[in-house]
Amino acid sequence: MGSMALAGGAPARVGLAPKNGVFGSNLKQCTGFMLKTTPNVAFSSVRVRASLSSSTQKQHSPKTSGVKSGEEVHIAVLGASGYTGAEIVRLLANHPQFRIKVMTADRKAGQQFGSVFPHLITQDLPNLVAVKDADFSNVDAVFCCLPHGTTQEIIKGLPQQLKIVDLSADFRLRDIEEYAEWYGHSHMAPELQQEAVYGLTEVLRDEIKNARLVANPGCYPTSIQLPLVPLIKAKLIKVSNIIIDAKSGVSGAGRGAKEANLYTEIAEGIHAYGIKGHRHVPEIEQGLSEAAKSKVTISFTPNLICMKRGMQSTMFVEMEPGVTVNDLYQHLNATYEGEEFVKLLHGSSVPHTRHVVGSNYCFMNVFEDRIPGRAIIISVIDNLVKGASGQAVQNLNLMMGLPESTGLQYQPLFP
Amino acid sequence: MGSMALAGGAPARVGLAPKNGVFGSNLKQCTGFMLKTTPNVAFSSVRVRASLSSSTQKQHSPKTSGVKSGEEVHIAVLGASGYTGAEIVRLLANHPQFRIKVMTADRKAGQQFGSVFPHLITQDLPNLVAVKDADFSNVDAVFCCLPHGTTQEIIKGLPQQLKIVDLSADFRLRDIEEYAEWYGHSHMAPELQQEAVYGLTEVLRDEIKNARLVANPGCYPTSIQLPLVPLIKAKLIKVSNIIIDAKSGVSGAGRGAKEANLYTEIAEGIHAYGIKGHRHVPEIEQGLSEAAKSKVTISFTPNLICMKRGMQSTMFVEMEPGVTVNDLYQHLNATYEGEEFVKLLHGSSVPHTRHVVGSNYCFMNVFEDRIPGRAIIISVIDNLVKGASGQAVQNLNLMMGLPESTGLQYQPLFP
Amino acid sequence: MGSMALAGGAPARVGLAPKNGVFGSNLKQCTGFMLKTTPNVAFSSVRVRASLSSSTQKQHSPKTSGVKSGEEVHIAVLGASGYTGAEIVRLLANHPQFRIKVMTADRKAGQQFGSVFPHLITQDLPNLVAVKDADFSNVDAVFCCLPHGTTQEIIKGLPQQLKIVDLSADFRLRDIEEYAEWYGHSHMAPELQQEAVYGLTEVLRDEIKNARLVANPGCYPTSIQLPLVPLIKAKLIKVSNIIIDAKSGVSGAGRGAKEANLYTEIAEGIHAYGIKGHRHVPEIEQGLSEAAKSKVTISFTPNLICMKRGMQSTMFVEMEPGVTVNDLYQHLNATYEGEEFVKLLHGSSVPHTRHVVGSNYCFMNVFEDRIPGRAIIISVIDNLVKGASGQAVQNLNLMMGLPESTGLQYQPLFP
Amino acid sequence: MGSMALAGGAPARVGLAPKNGVFGSNLKQCTGFMLKTTPNVAFSSVRVRASLSSSTQKQHSPKTSGVKSGEEVHIAVLGASGYTGAEIVRLLANHPQFRIKVMTADRKAGQQFGSVFPHLITQDLPNLVAVKDADFSNVDAVFCCLPHGTTQEIIKGLPQQLKIVDLSADFRLRDIEEYAEWYGHSHMAPELQQEAVYGLTEVLRDEIKNARLVANPGCYPTSIQLPLVPLIKAKLIKVSNIIIDAKSGVSGAGRGAKEANLYTEIAEGIHAYGIKGHRHVPEIEQGLSEAAKSKVTISFTPNLICMKRGMQSTMFVEMEPGVTVNDLYQHLNATYEGEEFVKLLHGSSVPHTRHVVGSNYCFMNVFEDRIPGRAIIISVIDNLVKGASGQAVQNLNLMMGLPESTGLQYQPLFP
Repeated sequence: MGSMALAGGAPARVGLAPKNGVFGSNLKQCTGFMLKTTPNVAFSSVRVRASLSSSTQKQHSPKTSGVKSGEEVHIAVLGASGYTGAEIVRLLANHPQFRIKVMTADRKAGQQFGSVFPHLITQDLPNLVAVKDADFSNVDAVFCCLPHGTTQEIIKGLPQQLKIVDLSADFRLRDIEEYAEWYGHSHMAPELQQEAVYGLTEVLRDEIKNARLVANPGCYPTSIQLPLVPLIKAKLIKVSNIIIDAKSGVSGAGRGAKEANLYTEIAEGIHAYGIKGHRHVPEIEQGLSEAAKSKVTISFTPNLICMKRGMQSTMFVEMEPGVTVNDLYQHLNATYEGEEFVKLLHGSSVPHTRHVVGSNYCFMNVFEDRIPGRAIIISVIDNLVKGASGQAVQNLNLMMGLPESTGLQYQPLFP
Repeated sequence: MGSMALAGGAPARVGLAPKNGVFGSNLKQCTGFMLKTTPNVAFSSVRVRASLSSSTQKQHSPKTSGVKSGEEVHIAVLGASGYTGAEIVRLLANHPQFRIKVMTADRKAGQQFGSVFPHLITQDLPNLVAVKDADFSNVDAVFCCLPHGTTQEIIKGLPQQLKIVDLSADFRLRDIEEYAEWYGHSHMAPELQQEAVYGLTEVLRDEIKNARLVANPGCYPTSIQLPLVPLIKAKLIKVSNIIIDAKSGVSGAGRGAKEANLYTEIAEGIHAYGIKGHRHVPEIEQGLSEAAKSKVTISFTPNLICMKRGMQSTMFVEMEPGVTVNDLYQHLNATYEGEEFVKLLHGSSVPHTRHVVGSNYCFMNVFEDRIPGRAIIISVIDNLVKGASGQAVQNLNLMMGLPESTGLQYQPLFP
Repeated sequence: MGSMALAGGAPARVGLAPKNGVFGSNLKQCTGFMLKTTPNVAFSSVRVRASLSSSTQKQHSPKTSGVKSGEEVHIAVLGASGYTGAEIVRLLANHPQFRIKVMTADRKAGQQFGSVFPHLITQDLPNLVAVKDADFSNVDAVFCCLPHGTTQEIIKGLPQQLKIVDLSADFRLRDIEEYAEWYGHSHMAPELQQEAVYGLTEVLRDEIKNARLVANPGCYPTSIQLPLVPLIKAKLIKVSNIIIDAKSGVSGAGRGAKEANLYTEIAEGIHAYGIKGHRHVPEIEQGLSEAAKSKVTISFTPNLICMKRGMQSTMFVEMEPGVTVNDLYQHLNATYEGEEFVKLLHGSSVPHTRHVVGSNYCFMNVFEDRIPGRAIIISVIDNLVKGASGQAVQNLNLMMGLPESTGLQYQPLFP
Repeated sequence: MGSMALAGGAPARVGLAPKNGVFGSNLKQCTGFMLKTTPNVAFSSVRVRASLSSSTQKQHSPKTSGVKSGEEVHIAVLGASGYTGAEIVRLLANHPQFRIKVMTADRKAGQQFGSVFPHLITQDLPNLVAVKDADFSNVDAVFCCLPHGTTQEIIKGLPQQLKIVDLSADFRLRDIEEYAEWYGHSHMAPELQQEAVYGLTEVLRDEIKNARLVANPGCYPTSIQLPLVPLIKAKLIKVSNIIIDAKSGVSGAGRGAKEANLYTEIAEGIHAYGIKGHRHVPEIEQGLSEAAKSKVTISFTPNLICMKRGMQSTMFVEMEPGVTVNDLYQHLNATYEGEEFVKLLHGSSVPHTRHVVGSNYCFMNVFEDRIPGRAIIISVIDNLVKGASGQAVQNLNLMMGLPESTGLQYQPLFP
């Protein structure tokens, strides 16, 4: 990574057409789903009431990574009116130290959070404000749940001392050329991109501990990299023909009102979308390529299915000569043995998406294929938890020096 | 209640046909759903390994109602292979003091709990045993999640010092004649019935605190009595024509394999069932009659809808002369103002079942009817939580002298 | 037609607030759901290419009510990009004589119908055009599937010789004062309102046969009036306290992109909406009042549930003294004995919404209530078929002199 | 028929273990799902009332393949109480010539069909009888919807002149050794196996026309062979690494009461099952091998998702050198150009399962993969229609000399 020279001077390729592919009609804005149009990149007027902390209130000393037990960490949630924002609130309801002090939602500014998400009316929360009106003087850390493309400028404007976990895709791609290619405009905060640490917790824990800005991984990339990165690093599988068929619940598409995501359009069915062109592809290939130390190109077919939460990734891989399915199993077992949130199932147990809903778990298992030399790996997560807000809390725990499972010990909700 | 002379000598009317009514085809065994056939009442051979505690293990001193902070309470879950049993496990996963030490499931004895409920594989739990093989010597309290009819004999056989919360219907009806009429056989533990306290927490909190055996309310009765009991007590509504249209998720029907509850039969639809003849009727009428101090007969139409969890009860009531909808609202507001789990919504907000799923909340509100003098009251709960296992934990907390919300502070899971 | 004179004299009460009520947050635009805002009533520029039939094509002689077997009836579908429009297409796919020649959809003008509704790509259909560009010279009859409020002006502009079935609410209320009160603006085609026949087929069959303009009933009104109108006419039930709890699938809300109707917001749940204020109320009360020959006020609580199609109406009624549930049953039986699409179930069979999906059937049954003197009536329909497009085809069949079930003999799709 | 000699001598290899594989917990009995246990093969007592037609009724002359327009064909449906049986009834409701005269269901003998499937109560149908009591003297053709394993003996016992479409898996595998290996017992009617024609209509139309016994394909095999067989025959794709990820609705698992298929267990989720060991594998490999003229081994991972009907098969294939995705598209286009039920979508349109529900269509399309030289093919069907009963009717139409789409022109039901 050290040599990853960022072309600082790279002329902003704003307006560049998004990378072409076979697009489905159900393009998504959120959680890594594709953008149909180039996002509005004019954020120059964003002014954040950051250090204007001439407030009369008791001065809050910013928390750093060494938070003591019992000490409160003040949290801001930016973009709190979306599903990942609401999920942060749900998870933090039982966090012993993180306290939400600021919530922003530009289009719902002035509203009570409970009117936007009535399932959380019992929580004592600040009212929603526009991000430009937010007061960060009393804040230690930020969860940024804003749409892709809007995030770079906002984060640039935040006070330097804040710890930030960004749930958008804006800082996930280390190569800003690749960012420009997939998102249709040049990166607006390349210096922050250099600083950002990719937040795949179990894989990059040490880097995350010392990070100020974490780029929280996408849901598909989380469910795919957790099993594949260790297997590739150990040279147990070939990287030439990795084929992935993945299925996502609809919450990954966000709360935006779209015909394609109406109940009537989604219930009782499945369809593929974004074949070849899904924006999580470069993020996945980046992670696998780093593990392989060579460029990896994957086959990736995401599907939208009639469930609110949940994600299954089925990975069809070719093993290196002499390697057996049991070798894959044993290596994953050794890798994740002590992990609280990544669980390799026993025997031939098949991971069900239903068995992780509401929790931060990733369940996975490895299966023999009928075709000799091949294996099938299946992983499941809740796309809104381990695939978004749960991993974000896990990361901020690490960044603040807390045990990483703090406030995350929710068992899955089944049935 | 003092005069409620229990006909101790009442000849066992075993075999009496269940009360007739208009039965739907989708009769349920669990959570108050109707039994199609008379349950097997031959439990005379049940022998519980209760005080045979000649075990060599460190003697466990039984906990009483005054549990200290930090002190462990040892729990047995009887009938742990059903949904309410699994839900007890999920809820207790974050309880600071309740520890599950015994789990029974006769047909799955010997199995690991995680093989029966894979969503809970991360929990460190005892293996399932048959109830006759369970060792209660190290146990302080019991959640009894057994089917209706099987429970009376089992509980009779438990050691006297145990605190018991029974989630079946077996001890809910104070009048054992009425029990016999609805369940088709005479009550097998009338002396325990006299001892049992009805566990509608917010209404009978003080009695529950001192109880040894609590009959945990049914789901429909909970959602209906919470709003109606205070209104009837305050003489704000008439009791002559209370009409209730209620809707339940399918988990209320339990985990038994039945054609009528297959995904293919249930998805994308609604149907009424048990019109006139649902076994929760006597329980509801018992509660409303006590509040009214006169016999109340209700109109009750339950519906099964295509959702896993959730319950909505819509109550159409006539107000006493001069009473307004606002009077109802204000009285409910005053009644539940300080309650943690019962929430009267603001303004004209409509309770959605989706907004309480996974939580112990009951959300309710009152609406004006087009017909003058009438009001519409809507309440929602998660049938498996406030309607079953959540209220059970709430009750045991009270019985053990703990704050009643201990381990129950789960926010709803939405979407 | 060229002069399509807008009733300039009628003082449009634009801006008049809609009738107040207890509004839920999930207001709907379509199929009788409530409008949040006053509809845009400025249609002065609508110009219909009606009799400009200087086309070179073979002259089409307009069909009247005496269509011969084998003779083609040319159909226009206005507003074909919504669910009721698509359903007309699905149903007519097997109609032996109705042929769709014109399809309009202003916002999707120029598109192929199969790109808007890919499930119908195999049908050979005309491309979508804007209504102002539609050529009606070759058309015999029109299904008008436009949103409420937009329809009055459009229909006024259609050639006089066309038979019209209007699926909107625009011509359902005979009292234009009541229309103005509920819809927030004065009626824009009062003379057409006078001409319009209310299309509740089984009740008003003879009037429909001779009608030129039929106001197709709303879904709730259909499911409620079919059982209640005969019972009221026969003076078997009291009209003073009719209480209705109804449940609708989400397709009734139309295809408009709304946050409240996203899969993530709707799946796995139920909520009431529009309590007291639903716009189907005046339509239902109109029908029941006519049957009673006195003003009837109902209690009506609609609910939105997680299903695409289907509607259940549960009606709680008080019987006249001396009347029994069997009397109700026998009267409904006699009323609907020969009907093809209205079926009284046998014995205690409970109507399920799942059992009519995709068909034009209304299944109903009557049940005894626990409260003496009361009865419970349940009816189910597919809101898009008997509640909209199916009844519309049934009506046009009658209007054209064809057997009313022509092209409608679809059995329900279950599971 | 009187002699209906049951092959008593055939040594039933009862108890032979089914082929091992990685079994999921959700094994299915029907429509090709796996059997957990060896089926009961003792049918020696089966006696069919075939030619005992000493009935007084007007003699029915058996229809052969040259049915004239308007002539009635008398149909028996064996195993009519399952979903595929009900679907036959639904489809035939509008068939101009097929009339159901006999319906069997051993466990529901004596019941009205409408009490077993209330959505079809309006159909005038014979009551259910046990198969041993069925009178085939007045029957021309049989749809056999019995479970796998039970069918061989039953069909052996049917009168020779009957045309038979068997929807079970019993006659699909040409190699009876392979049958024994996958089903755990030797084939009980090898001579019929030799006679049976595999009923993949579009591929084997000519053979089907002249067949007496057609083995109707499984749902997965239909959705997979329709696209792959032509591509393999044309040598456009390699057969060495065909990877298939398929997803099925739950109706494929039949109507048997199983815990794993309860609404509560299935809703809102997806899981793989039968990885490596699904019994449709040999059927698929048989078809692909014949096309390739060499043994093909596939990678096949089926998934069960929360939908009632529908099936998506996603096929990841390697193209032969020099072949492009457009070549695949053009070849499929040429192959299926005139077909009524197989549709290649235009451009980059993605097949959705929702868009074929209730219809006999197979929609498919071909997509470029990110990995050069690879392609992704997606096909969708309704598993109960084109994947079962629809294709069965299509086949019997051919066998009787009728246009193959007779009675099958149902458009998909959406939403």
